[in-house]
Amino acid sequence: MTSYRFAVNVTPKPGILDPQGRAMEGSLGHLGIVGVSGVRVGRRVELTVDAADEPAARVTVEQLAAELLSNPLIEAYDIELLAAASSIVGAARGT
Amino acid sequence: MTSYRFAVNVTPKPGILDPQGRAMEGSLGHLGIVGVSGVRVGRRVELTVDAADEPAARVTVEQLAAELLSNPLIEAYDIELLAAASSIVGAARGT
Repeated sequence: MTSYRFAVNVTPKPGILDPQGRAMEGSLGHLGIVGVSGVRVGRRVELTVDAADEPAARVTVEQLAAELLSNPLIEAYDIELLAAASSIVGAARGT
Repeated sequence: MTSYRFAVNVTPKPGILDPQGRAMEGSLGHLGIVGVSGVRVGRRVELTVDAADEPAARVTVEQLAAELLSNPLIEAYDIELLAAASSIVGAARGT
């Protein structure tokens, strides 16, 4: 078994209203920050999966991302591999 | 002026308690998903910055990330450049 550290980025789909992003964009104007637009607020979930190999780990993460971490009607997700095996020890210690 | 699309990933610092991540980890067990650990839940903010060049755009994003998007006591952030110039038109349309 090897440990793989992944990040799942969940963002509102294009065309879906994002009130949090809108609110943030509105606040920036009041703070005198200009030239910022298209603010979209999503989630980022980082997790470690123990699996025999990377494809097996990806299957687990893919299932989690599609079924639990995102709402497929309004959200899109993408998966990033952050690290494999012993190099994740430091990152996982914080949990 | 060129438009640059960035993502800011904000995650709880190592060692900082993450109740949302803990709750998610606990739920996985009940759902019969095993081998997942070290779940940390953060935010991902995507935004477009208009600036003269990429370093200038990064200065704006860096300021936003440090002062507005994250709480420096308990959160860490990292910045990703997603795309520059005309290639962002499609991505920004969803806002």
